[in-house]
Amino acid sequence: MPHPNDPSHRSFIDVSPTSDFPIQNLPYGVFSTRDGLAPRVGVAIGNYVLDLWELEQDSRLDVGPLGVFSSKCLNPFMALGPKVWAKTRARISELLRSDNPELRDNRELRERALVPMADVTLHLPVSVSGYTDFYSSKEHATNVGVMFRGKDNALQPNWLFMPIGYNGRASTVVVSGTKVKRPRGQLKPPTVDVPSFAPCKRLDFELEMGVVVGQASAMGGMLTEQQAEEMIFGFVLLNDWSARDIQQWEYVPLGPFLAKAFATSISPWIITREALEPFRLQGPEQEPAPLAYLKQGKPQNYNVELDVALRAAGANAPASISRTNFKYMYWSSVQQLMHHASSGCAMNVGDLLGSGTISGPEKDQRGSLLEISWNGTEPVELPGGVKRSFLEDGDSLVMRGWCQGNGYRVGFGEVEGTILPAE
Amino acid sequence: MPHPNDPSHRSFIDVSPTSDFPIQNLPYGVFSTRDGLAPRVGVAIGNYVLDLWELEQDSRLDVGPLGVFSSKCLNPFMALGPKVWAKTRARISELLRSDNPELRDNRELRERALVPMADVTLHLPVSVSGYTDFYSSKEHATNVGVMFRGKDNALQPNWLFMPIGYNGRASTVVVSGTKVKRPRGQLKPPTVDVPSFAPCKRLDFELEMGVVVGQASAMGGMLTEQQAEEMIFGFVLLNDWSARDIQQWEYVPLGPFLAKAFATSISPWIITREALEPFRLQGPEQEPAPLAYLKQGKPQNYNVELDVALRAAGANAPASISRTNFKYMYWSSVQQLMHHASSGCAMNVGDLLGSGTISGPEKDQRGSLLEISWNGTEPVELPGGVKRSFLEDGDSLVMRGWCQGNGYRVGFGEVEGTILPAE
Repeated sequence: MPHPNDPSHRSFIDVSPTSDFPIQNLPYGVFSTRDGLAPRVGVAIGNYVLDLWELEQDSRLDVGPLGVFSSKCLNPFMALGPKVWAKTRARISELLRSDNPELRDNRELRERALVPMADVTLHLPVSVSGYTDFYSSKEHATNVGVMFRGKDNALQPNWLFMPIGYNGRASTVVVSGTKVKRPRGQLKPPTVDVPSFAPCKRLDFELEMGVVVGQASAMGGMLTEQQAEEMIFGFVLLNDWSARDIQQWEYVPLGPFLAKAFATSISPWIITREALEPFRLQGPEQEPAPLAYLKQGKPQNYNVELDVALRAAGANAPASISRTNFKYMYWSSVQQLMHHASSGCAMNVGDLLGSGTISGPEKDQRGSLLEISWNGTEPVELPGGVKRSFLEDGDSLVMRGWCQGNGYRVGFGEVEGTILPAE
Repeated sequence: MPHPNDPSHRSFIDVSPTSDFPIQNLPYGVFSTRDGLAPRVGVAIGNYVLDLWELEQDSRLDVGPLGVFSSKCLNPFMALGPKVWAKTRARISELLRSDNPELRDNRELRERALVPMADVTLHLPVSVSGYTDFYSSKEHATNVGVMFRGKDNALQPNWLFMPIGYNGRASTVVVSGTKVKRPRGQLKPPTVDVPSFAPCKRLDFELEMGVVVGQASAMGGMLTEQQAEEMIFGFVLLNDWSARDIQQWEYVPLGPFLAKAFATSISPWIITREALEPFRLQGPEQEPAPLAYLKQGKPQNYNVELDVALRAAGANAPASISRTNFKYMYWSSVQQLMHHASSGCAMNVGDLLGSGTISGPEKDQRGSLLEISWNGTEPVELPGGVKRSFLEDGDSLVMRGWCQGNGYRVGFGEVEGTILPAE
């Protein structure tokens, strides 16, 4: 069987060369339609969603126990493991190819199984077991360090030795399009003696990628590079909304807590690790060399172009405020996962790992307003003379990502969120 | 109906006055027996477990949809809410009372529903949705602060204004009796330039209580004192195992991560908030007064005596190394919950909140070896001339807790864990 990543494949469904979802992508999501049926698993192809539950019921897919695709999340399918993931993706690719009449010429099945994207509601694709957020862009960590500790102490001494991370809050991971209410919290600017409880005044986004873990690992165990890699089901775009003023007052000594707990938005389609394979590349040189348990023998970064756009309240269209790439990450997702498990921490199906804010080496490649506005001192200028240091009520933030192939792109779609006022 | 907390109640089951589980307690747990049946929900009474699934099948309990007690965790029952919790506890109390023939004289049902404690295996009673660990004992925070920052800067400036906490790792919360493998991690004592990856050398326990959250709250919402209180299903003993050397190197700036992620042990019986009602008391005075969103109008602390015992590897019996009380906590569980939700963070059925290490004002009331041995400088002396600064392989740590009533005690049982060597 030809490999589903083969760039020569075409689908009988018409897909534009600038679509995020050609037959080389085939990302998984959870969708519902207006007919009142429960949410179920689908795959994006061009402007359509392929309903895997319809295909499964029609015995067109062989994934073991009937019903993994009638689930409202991808966890049951992910639990089946990487061999089933690969086999299923190859079969879906086969069913969608222009040279295969099986679905192409079966009008009745096609009408049941192919739903126009415009007619569906997309849901959170995974039941998030644990959410961990890393801090693995050297450029981001350096920018933040320079701002708060000065140039000479920008990177903390541990940063070059391990992927620094913390446990986030899984209960408020939401899907793109979910509105985000401005959080309240304790604020204590340096100019006052006691904190007040008030709506956050320095609301920010963080551009990240999220890894969706599709396999569990045992408590007390460790992971090899290969084991870690094979546990990764796929990737999403992730916006780690951040209340900078709440964070500043609360985070010593136990780290960010409520400043990050009110919302984390992810894109609805999980791009499989396999679909990203042609875009794998070597990350930045790591110096000092990682300790043995963090060594990787393969290039583990990916060439994913990333764009952040801000639609200020009242504006007609979003304007790009940052353009960067996932390839800049210093610590790879595989290293993050090896580190995470290294103390004996059990990983679960449905764990979500945020990469950390992705900033690039250039000024226009910064992944947060904190960096873009340099802590509010250089507000970003938007069309129509509008300026922003941090997010205001009614602002919408849109992140997009894609891998550019020759004549096609493997895209992530978008993750969007609009700020509602605190009540 | 007489209140189930009435100290005059007696059960037809013989319960010693020093038992943790008289008819005034009735804690919930999950147990299995050797007959191969799946784990199910039970209540501890003296040296027996009352099988609630047998009672439910026999229509002796009215808790709505059949099957909440055949679950392998308490989450489905907890989701039914505080009115059902109270009604069920009153009904169980009624069924167990010596003056009620219903169960007492039904030999067939009694034999099915009452299982000797010695014949059961106890399981993790709750499917932990999120695990949050607080830091709410002023004595503990002060001890740690004095050790690492000196007397004058012992408490961080934010500590008196909010219950400081961080997200922990839910995937490694385990039930009492589960062996704990010594974690590995990056260690960098001040005497060396680069870290090594090695087994933890400063393995510690932390004596805590855990709150089991039994009701959800909405994303974006806040909680009143009454709402927070009514969401609390009950309490367990909690040992927040800590790798001090891993923590020291990793925790700046994002807080404890792998140093706490390898294991957290809890006691198997959830003591209901209602059973603790007679032992409620006023906590320490809070000065400065809490901000409005953290104000509480009722005493929200509980008088729970706590004992920590250490059985050194090879020793026959555990020796007590600390004796303290839950009443010393500066921030109450209700305040922790109000704070947790205050930024808009959704709470879930099955969330577990660790109180933070419970130390008292006296030297023999410290809740961790870090404090007891004053960072290793004053090893604790155990029977037979054995000394300990931190935990060694083969050591067992046992925490017990109880509320002392007049002629009875409402007890928590114990949480035990034995250290296995790193591989």
